[in-house]
Amino acid sequence: MGVSSRQKIEVSAGHPYPVFLGANLEDLGDYMLSRFGNIEQALIITQPVVAKHYADRVRQGFKGCRVDLVTVSAGEGEKSLARLSALVGEAVRLGADRLTLVVALGGGVIGDLAGFFAGVFMRGIRFVQVPTTLLAMVDSSIGGKVAVNHPAGKNLLGAFYPPLAVWTDFSTLASLPWQEVQNGLAETVKHAVLGDPDLFAFLEEHLSKILERDPLILRELTARSLAVKVRLVSQDEREQGVRALLNLGHSFGHALETATEYEGISHGRGVSVGLVAASRLAEERGLIAGADVQRIMNLLSGLGLPISVRGLEAGRLVQLMAADKKNRFGRKVLILPRGIGQAVQVEDCSDEDLRRAWAGVIDSNFPIS
Amino acid sequence: MGVSSRQKIEVSAGHPYPVFLGANLEDLGDYMLSRFGNIEQALIITQPVVAKHYADRVRQGFKGCRVDLVTVSAGEGEKSLARLSALVGEAVRLGADRLTLVVALGGGVIGDLAGFFAGVFMRGIRFVQVPTTLLAMVDSSIGGKVAVNHPAGKNLLGAFYPPLAVWTDFSTLASLPWQEVQNGLAETVKHAVLGDPDLFAFLEEHLSKILERDPLILRELTARSLAVKVRLVSQDEREQGVRALLNLGHSFGHALETATEYEGISHGRGVSVGLVAASRLAEERGLIAGADVQRIMNLLSGLGLPISVRGLEAGRLVQLMAADKKNRFGRKVLILPRGIGQAVQVEDCSDEDLRRAWAGVIDSNFPIS
Ligand SMILES: NC(=O)c1ccc[n+]([C@@H]2O[C@H](COP(=O)([O-])OP(=O)(O)OC[C@H]3O[C@@H](n4cnc5c(N)ncnc54)[C@H](O)[C@@H]3O)[C@@H](O)[C@H]2O)c1
Ligand SMILES: NC(=O)c1ccc[n+]([C@@H]2O[C@H](COP(=O)([O-])OP(=O)(O)OC[C@H]3O[C@@H](n4cnc5c(N)ncnc54)[C@H](O)[C@@H]3O)[C@@H](O)[C@H]2O)c1
Repeated sequence: MGVSSRQKIEVSAGHPYPVFLGANLEDLGDYMLSRFGNIEQALIITQPVVAKHYADRVRQGFKGCRVDLVTVSAGEGEKSLARLSALVGEAVRLGADRLTLVVALGGGVIGDLAGFFAGVFMRGIRFVQVPTTLLAMVDSSIGGKVAVNHPAGKNLLGAFYPPLAVWTDFSTLASLPWQEVQNGLAETVKHAVLGDPDLFAFLEEHLSKILERDPLILRELTARSLAVKVRLVSQDEREQGVRALLNLGHSFGHALETATEYEGISHGRGVSVGLVAASRLAEERGLIAGADVQRIMNLLSGLGLPISVRGLEAGRLVQLMAADKKNRFGRKVLILPRGIGQAVQVEDCSDEDLRRAWAGVIDSNFPIS
Repeated sequence: MGVSSRQKIEVSAGHPYPVFLGANLEDLGDYMLSRFGNIEQALIITQPVVAKHYADRVRQGFKGCRVDLVTVSAGEGEKSLARLSALVGEAVRLGADRLTLVVALGGGVIGDLAGFFAGVFMRGIRFVQVPTTLLAMVDSSIGGKVAVNHPAGKNLLGAFYPPLAVWTDFSTLASLPWQEVQNGLAETVKHAVLGDPDLFAFLEEHLSKILERDPLILRELTARSLAVKVRLVSQDEREQGVRALLNLGHSFGHALETATEYEGISHGRGVSVGLVAASRLAEERGLIAGADVQRIMNLLSGLGLPISVRGLEAGRLVQLMAADKKNRFGRKVLILPRGIGQAVQVEDCSDEDLRRAWAGVIDSNFPIS
């Protein structure tokens, strides 16, 4: 794949930055070194499995510049202040300073952790997002949010710290376990539902190719899905308005993740069930037709994503939603689909509304219309 | 002191903010609540001794809004990731969220720690600096730098996170131990040397009143000293140019602090000796007259600040300076006075130059011209 096939989308924000699609890992160094002066060290932060497959390809491009690699274990647990502190010690040991470029090579965990590290090390050094999971490509690498978790809450410490660029090499998806692909597909369906009806139709139409992991189809859906995020983030970088629409399904999903302590239900699976719960609630309010809710459920199921859960209690999940920081302004803020391709923010959902929505996705007892 | 005597200087930066001088602690709440909407909680972060004297005065003004207080022990050691993590837990327990205003009530340690907390909690919530030490008033509360320390280096994790406002009530200086006043005076002399010859003359002229802690004189020198910082920071918020001049004396001073592990020599005393070392080096290069170096030494001595140190070895101090992050760009960057009232950045000092400058402040062996 030559430079010619590299596409570029601009995120317009306080500091605008480009998202490159179909870029090659090997070309990153050359681009960064020629575009941004004064880079003396590339500090690649990644995980062992990603390093094994891709670190050398990234290294290659950084000619005439020190390259160092730091790996952290896989898992959400690494997105912590303890890991951040260890990274700082390691970075200093490797001679990192203001002329270091942090290369966040990995999924959302690495993007969030390495991005936050870059945001606070010496009050902020430069970094580039190199997403290697579908979820990171369509979602977490874009928008400038970086964070670590705290025992008192997920993503509780973080910043808006946009990268210099996002460098997406689709070939990295080849090694991604299927269930990680599914996590990204859940966000892709979410993006389609809240902002791109054509993408939704594309996913329905190419379902079997997606299941076969056809690279061209994955590439296409990735590009379209991330475009939805780029559009909303460009309109509202700091999440004071439309960017909140991206939380469609998330208030429900987070509650599920918390209820299962991030063990039982992955983020993507939480979003999938959350999307169904939000859709049912939207249907009750006349925002979306029953047939469209059915299409959403069919698509998620077709992708192997869950549309219901077992063994959880609706009342408990409603309580967990109340504790969610997105609901803390004294009122419950929820994002609901309006048909397929649009979403709205509603603020008047009662606990009873939420309980009914949950009941509809627990054990599949909800009568499907 | 009524509202009428409150002065205001604007820091022009990415997000401009006002510095209020001669403000009353009691009036802070009213100002913040009427100027910035949607504040549901004031979270005062402070230290026990400061809380004892001043917390109630701050509380008073926040009518119709929850007020909570968190204290951290005194000392540079509290500017740590561990303390930050504890603050986050405490804040969540107290119901802090995006509608919380952090009130950093204290000296530079509190300003840096509480400011960094505000900068990263939920990706950034609002905060106001309420400096209660002279050093915080003339220096640390202005310019938006916030940070915590790490075993691998001072201020290694931080951000540029300007406050909504700086609220300076001179009456808080009354309870400040004299040696803390001296720390602030060292920075004041530094500001005078690098940017305000009239302030320098004012300090010389009113030396005895300063030693008596005359409130009006302290007030005047504080206002003039912080104006120097406001001017430089307004020209160069991110320290890519003139702001670096504020580091006059600091490269030397930091080395002293490190050599004595922050125990033997306070920040202000380190700056005082550093100012002398930088001045001697400047004299050698013909940047400043011997008579002016003598004036600087006389003023510092007159204020009870050290102009030399004992029991340290020049070679070791040169090595420590090389390790300083401000010297890491492959060349040594030093700020030197050019006469009294100006400063310049030089990049061509050899280790031998530095060694001689150190030798000149060790044990006072240097022949005073
Ligand atoms: N910042 C944001 O805006 C944002 C948005 C959504 C999610 N997130 C965060 O993203 C995180 C989840 O990200 P994720 O789903 O990418 O999970 P992840 O980063 O944990 O990656 C999933 C797994 O895939 C492995 N992996 C990564 N790339 C690979 C590849 N190319 N081949 C083989 N294995 C590979 C990783 O080692 C890991 O074990 C969460 O922490 C979430 O909070 C952030
Ligand atoms: N952010 C910046 O731009 C910047 C600039 C310079 C220094 N700093 C930082 O500032 C810190 C030093 O600040 P500092 O000199 O104010 O020290 P400090 O904050 O430790 O305060 C000194 C002592 O005075 C006490 N105190 C504070 N106000 C008081 C009052 N009104 N009455 C009685 N006691 C009071 C404190 O409890 C403390 O014990 C260092 O950590 C340094 O790195 C930051």
